[in-house]
Amino acid sequence: MKKEETKLFREAWIHYVYHLQDTICKALEAIDGKATFIEDAWQRAEGRGGGGLTKVISNGNIFEKGGVNVSVVYGHVTDNMRKHLNMDGDTWFACGLSLVIHPINPFVPTVHANWRYFELHDADGNVKDRWFGGGSDLTPYYLFEEDATHFHTTLKKQCDAYDTAFYPLYKKECDHYFMNRHRNNECRGIGGIFYDYLRPIEGRDADYWKQFSMSISSAFLEGYLPIVEKRKNFLYTLENKYWQEIRRGRYVEFNLIHDRGTLFGLKTNGRTESILMSLPPTVRFEYNYRPEPGSEEEKLTKVLLEPKDWA
Amino acid sequence: MKKEETKLFREAWIHYVYHLQDTICKALEAIDGKATFIEDAWQRAEGRGGGGLTKVISNGNIFEKGGVNVSVVYGHVTDNMRKHLNMDGDTWFACGLSLVIHPINPFVPTVHANWRYFELHDADGNVKDRWFGGGSDLTPYYLFEEDATHFHTTLKKQCDAYDTAFYPLYKKECDHYFMNRHRNNECRGIGGIFYDYLRPIEGRDADYWKQFSMSISSAFLEGYLPIVEKRKNFLYTLENKYWQEIRRGRYVEFNLIHDRGTLFGLKTNGRTESILMSLPPTVRFEYNYRPEPGSEEEKLTKVLLEPKDWA
Repeated sequence: MKKEETKLFREAWIHYVYHLQDTICKALEAIDGKATFIEDAWQRAEGRGGGGLTKVISNGNIFEKGGVNVSVVYGHVTDNMRKHLNMDGDTWFACGLSLVIHPINPFVPTVHANWRYFELHDADGNVKDRWFGGGSDLTPYYLFEEDATHFHTTLKKQCDAYDTAFYPLYKKECDHYFMNRHRNNECRGIGGIFYDYLRPIEGRDADYWKQFSMSISSAFLEGYLPIVEKRKNFLYTLENKYWQEIRRGRYVEFNLIHDRGTLFGLKTNGRTESILMSLPPTVRFEYNYRPEPGSEEEKLTKVLLEPKDWA
Repeated sequence: MKKEETKLFREAWIHYVYHLQDTICKALEAIDGKATFIEDAWQRAEGRGGGGLTKVISNGNIFEKGGVNVSVVYGHVTDNMRKHLNMDGDTWFACGLSLVIHPINPFVPTVHANWRYFELHDADGNVKDRWFGGGSDLTPYYLFEEDATHFHTTLKKQCDAYDTAFYPLYKKECDHYFMNRHRNNECRGIGGIFYDYLRPIEGRDADYWKQFSMSISSAFLEGYLPIVEKRKNFLYTLENKYWQEIRRGRYVEFNLIHDRGTLFGLKTNGRTESILMSLPPTVRFEYNYRPEPGSEEEKLTKVLLEPKDWA
């Protein structure tokens, strides 16, 4: 692969990702109707390469806290990366978008998504390995089966356009990944899709996976916004809010105890504020909290313990 | 060391620890004046040995959430323990008390303590290694220098009765341990003492370290209660509470990202509810929160970034 060619490939992805950030933020601002995203451009410290643009929203009509972050970073492969990421190469490059949106209303689900591209180079700067990874998943506080179905169906439709084997595979991967193993294998939410190491193979080159990643990520708003629209005016009680905050505690537990991306970022001196923008705004931890038998709250936890097929 | 002798040694420590739990809980109930501790006796799952007694308090006049847990556990040394704890032996035994108390009033500091005894046995059940570990540390939301001095002086007095080298050593160890490395090495609080692997050595046998652990732990109330008494009726604003919840976020980050005990417990199938009883009741995470220059809030963070000598 020629260097010039991979440079153009990277630039096309970077361009796409920034454009997507803009599109998503504008759409979220429009539906919120009050809060706007604040921009925070950052550079990596200690002379390491790259930086990014973090956009955060807070105290809106709908969104209590959210962040949409683009990173374009590169550097030398460190011993830490060799050991923890099992990476073999001289330099690396990564560009991706991560987002987490925490609504105020407990009937509007939290959403998370991430789409990224990674390259490893040899000492001459030639690409020796490259892959796409990412996915999106939904974390409701109350279960509306039609919302889960809509979210998953949107993802399935995009996947199926490439290969009908993808959705079932990546859906299962997602359920498996976003799981609180210290909580009886309870899932963080009702899932979505999660894929990684999508490398060029026979008949499917890097352009194919780039197209796939673009299709999936471009459908993000189509999967999420109709759910927000449908639930945003639901009346809720203090009890509903309390339950949301308890569940947000599980979100914090997953992100800080299990999430590989978060932990790797924090332990390798990543930008803490951009990494932890995923944490919910207000959270509760209560000893041995159990929802009432037969309640809507219990209904949710049952589904989280046994992931269903939604699409 | 004869088996019968070590059995008596263990039993004396177990007896002491349960007695201490009772003393501490009663004293905290007395000062709170409203809430009482709820008891939760538990056994380890999956046929593994031992169990414990978790006592939790919530929604008191003074204490918003707190737990005082005794564990008396034992089992075979697993591969996981060999790898992560660098342990060599056939069976192990551990008994300790852990506590975390989160007051409502932002002017009353959070306190944490843990005192534990550990044994490793060979295949014949003979003790091949044994040690004490533990300590206590204070996490204020506003800095009162006299409180920090009182807490540390109480610990120093107990340490000095054994060896004047102990306090400076264990104080430094504490500052080093309770540190959020992903937050510019900010300490969780104003410290205290932290010690581990106190093994029988020439002139200082296991009884010496047991006595030491008892002296330190018996002085817990003397170090903490006068501070509670002094600050419990301070008037506070919503802004003070907001700041407390932001700082509690750092407490969560430390416990879930860095604390070896928490992570080891969760990853080896420990009792999740007893481990996570340390988490604060209500917490806030805000993107890039910075206290006002010159404020009391900023004054605290400065001290957390540069630990001081308080005793």
